[in-house]
Amino acid sequence: MTLFFRTVSVEDAVKAARSVAVPMQDEEAPLTAAYGRVLASDITADIDIPCFTRSTMDGYALAAADTIGASESLPAMLRLAGRVGMGGTADMPVTPGTCVYVPTGGAIPRGADGLAMVEVTESIGEDVLVKRPVAVGESIMVRGEDFAQGSVVVCGGTRLSARDIGALAAVGTTRVPVRKQPLVGIISTGNELVPVSDVPAGGQVRDINSYLIGAYLSSQGCIPEYYGIVRDERSALRSVLVRALDRCDAVLLSGGSSKDDRDMTADLIRDSGEVLVHGISIAPGKPTIIGRARGKPVIGLPGHPASALVVTLVIVRPLLFAMTGEREHDLLTRPMVLAENIPSVKGREDYIRVRIHDGRAYPEFGKSGLINTLVRSDGLVRIPAGMEGLEEGEVVEVILW
Amino acid sequence: MTLFFRTVSVEDAVKAARSVAVPMQDEEAPLTAAYGRVLASDITADIDIPCFTRSTMDGYALAAADTIGASESLPAMLRLAGRVGMGGTADMPVTPGTCVYVPTGGAIPRGADGLAMVEVTESIGEDVLVKRPVAVGESIMVRGEDFAQGSVVVCGGTRLSARDIGALAAVGTTRVPVRKQPLVGIISTGNELVPVSDVPAGGQVRDINSYLIGAYLSSQGCIPEYYGIVRDERSALRSVLVRALDRCDAVLLSGGSSKDDRDMTADLIRDSGEVLVHGISIAPGKPTIIGRARGKPVIGLPGHPASALVVTLVIVRPLLFAMTGEREHDLLTRPMVLAENIPSVKGREDYIRVRIHDGRAYPEFGKSGLINTLVRSDGLVRIPAGMEGLEEGEVVEVILW
Repeated sequence: MTLFFRTVSVEDAVKAARSVAVPMQDEEAPLTAAYGRVLASDITADIDIPCFTRSTMDGYALAAADTIGASESLPAMLRLAGRVGMGGTADMPVTPGTCVYVPTGGAIPRGADGLAMVEVTESIGEDVLVKRPVAVGESIMVRGEDFAQGSVVVCGGTRLSARDIGALAAVGTTRVPVRKQPLVGIISTGNELVPVSDVPAGGQVRDINSYLIGAYLSSQGCIPEYYGIVRDERSALRSVLVRALDRCDAVLLSGGSSKDDRDMTADLIRDSGEVLVHGISIAPGKPTIIGRARGKPVIGLPGHPASALVVTLVIVRPLLFAMTGEREHDLLTRPMVLAENIPSVKGREDYIRVRIHDGRAYPEFGKSGLINTLVRSDGLVRIPAGMEGLEEGEVVEVILW
Repeated sequence: MTLFFRTVSVEDAVKAARSVAVPMQDEEAPLTAAYGRVLASDITADIDIPCFTRSTMDGYALAAADTIGASESLPAMLRLAGRVGMGGTADMPVTPGTCVYVPTGGAIPRGADGLAMVEVTESIGEDVLVKRPVAVGESIMVRGEDFAQGSVVVCGGTRLSARDIGALAAVGTTRVPVRKQPLVGIISTGNELVPVSDVPAGGQVRDINSYLIGAYLSSQGCIPEYYGIVRDERSALRSVLVRALDRCDAVLLSGGSSKDDRDMTADLIRDSGEVLVHGISIAPGKPTIIGRARGKPVIGLPGHPASALVVTLVIVRPLLFAMTGEREHDLLTRPMVLAENIPSVKGREDYIRVRIHDGRAYPEFGKSGLINTLVRSDGLVRIPAGMEGLEEGEVVEVILW
C-alpha cells in the first residue's frame, strides 16, 4: 500500500515510461497502406535516381561550348539531329554543331552537357537558333543526382508522410518494412461512470476518457482496444487488467477517482510486476502511475479528461515512441504572445490550456470543466518546473493539440 | 484543342475547383471509428453537463457563510453530516453548521454553495475545522456549467480530433453523423512511367505520383483508388478515365508530360463535361487542369512530383473541403526568418521549398530534383502573386508539409 505519493520529475517519469516499453516487432506493409506507419529500417536507393541523365525542361540538348557568346542578335545555329521521346533512350549522340530535342524528363543524349530551353530558341527548318549561352549542366539532372544508388532515402524510425511514400515509390519499395501497430488496451475505472449510451443519473458521468484516449491512440498509429468501465473493486479490476494484458501490447487505465482507488490500481500492477512511478510533479496529472505488469507497460492516468490527455501527451507519447521506434520529436508548437500572466509553482511542470485570439494566447483559468475547455482551447502552454510562472507579453510556444 | 494556355489566378482556380465539387452524402460512424472524420452536423448537449452540481476537489461541501472570517488561529467548526460516494447522489442536505464530505467529481448536496478542500481543513472526530473562508461557488462546478442542454458542443464541418471525440462521448453520441469519405481515383499518365515494382530502363522512371498523391489523400480522410499507369494514348486514357469516373467521387490525373498530352487530357474531359481551368499562375504547377466530367471533378496535375504535391495542397485540398463539408482552415504554418532572398515574378504565386535550420528557413534553389528536395525539405514558403520576391531577414510563414 502506497501511503504517500513520492512525486518524480516529468523527466524521470518519461525515462520510466520509456524503460517499460517493449519494442514492437517488424512487419511488411504494402506501399499503399504504409502512410502514417513507422519505418522499421533505413531504405536505400536500389538504383541511381534518376537512372539516366535527363532534362528538366523542354528544349535542345547541346554542347555548351557551341553556345559561347550566343545572343539575340547573334544566335548560335545548330543542326537538329533528332528528337528523344518520353520513356525512350537517347540513341543519337550530340556532336559539335548539332542538337537533339528533349522533352522535360527525357533522356539527354551522349555528347550533350547542357540544354537550351525552347523559350530561348527559334526553329528554322532543320536548324535551331540558340539566343543565349547555355552553361554546362544547365537544365540537366545527371544520373544519380537525386539519390545515388545505396544512399539512404528515408531513415528508419520515420513516421511515413506522403512525401516519404513518394520517395519509397521512387526506389522501388513495394513492400515497406514497418513496426507493428501497438494494440493498446483502455480501461476506465470509477463507480461514477456510465456508458456513453446511457443517460447519467445524479452523481454519474459518462465515460469520456475511453474515447478521448482511444482517439488519441488512433492518431498516433496505435490500435485502441476498449475494455469498458470497471467499478472500483479489486477483483473486477484485476480480472479486466489480466484480460487486457493477455491481448494487448500496453494497457492504459484511467480514473481511480480517490487516493484509495489509485492505490488499489498500483497494488494490482505490483502484484504482477512493479510500479516505477506513482505521482509526477506535473499539473494537471499528478496522480499518474507508471508500471509494468506481466512484462508489459501499464499506465494509470488521472480520471479528469483534461488531465488524462495532458499525461497522455507528456508520458504516454514517449512510451509509444519507444515501442514503435518512432524518432522522438517535439510536439507541434507555434510561438505566441502571452496575453496574461500565468502563475505557477516552482518544482512542478504546468500545462495551461490557452485560446488563441488575434495572435495572442489567452490562458483558460478558473473552473477547468470536464470537457468544455478541452474542446474550446487551441493549445497548451508548458511552464517548466524551474519557473515560477510566465508573464504577459512573453513569447511562448503553444503546443497545438 | 487548347492552343494557348490562358492561365488564371490561384484564387480563381480555387473557386473553379470548389465549383466542380459534389458534396458527399452523410452516414453514421460508431464513436470509436469517428476520429478524423468530418462531422456532418452540429452536435448539441443532450443533457446538462455536468448533469448535477459536483465538486472539483476532495473536500467538505458547506455553506460559504459559515466560514466567514475563518483562519488558522480561529477556524470555523462544522459538524460532519455525512459522506457522498462517487457515482452516488447527495441525499443528506447541508444545513447551517454542518458539512458533507465529497470526493472530487462527487455530487454537492442541497444547501451547500462552496467546498473547502481537505488541505485547508482538519478532521477531529465528527467535527471538521475549516481554516480559511470559502467563497460562494468555490471548488464547485454547477449543473450545466460545462455545457447547457441544447448548446452546441462540436460544430458540423469539424474534422474530429481526439478532444472532439471526448466531447461527443460526454453528450452521449454513440453514432456520429459524418460525411462519407470521398473515393478518389488516381491515374498516372506518361510513356516514361513504369510500375514501382519494375527496374526502370534508360529513359524510364517509376510512378511516384500515384503513391505520393494517394498517401496525401489518405491523410485527408479520403480513400484513394489506384488506376495505375496509362500511356499517353487517347483511347487508353479515355477508357481508364471512364472506369474511374464510374466508381469514384473525383478523379486526379497526373502527368501528361508534354503540352500535346495535356491538351489530350483536357479534350477527353471536355468530351464528357467541361474544362474550367487549363493553366494556373502558379509555380510550380502551371499546367494544371480543372474540369468536370460526367458531373464529377477531374483535376489534371503536373507530372513532376513536387509540382503535383503543391497543386494538391493549393487546389485539390479546397476541392476536398467542398466535397466533405470540412470547414476551411489554413495549412499549418510556423513563422521563420528567411535566410536568403527569394526572387519571384509578379503576377505568379510561387511555392518555394525550404529547409529549417537553427530557426531560419533556407530556400532550396537550383535543381529541383524528382524527390530529393521533396523529402528533405521541411516546408514551403508562399510568395503571393502581388510580390516580386521575399528578402533575407523577413519573417515568413513556412507551410509545414
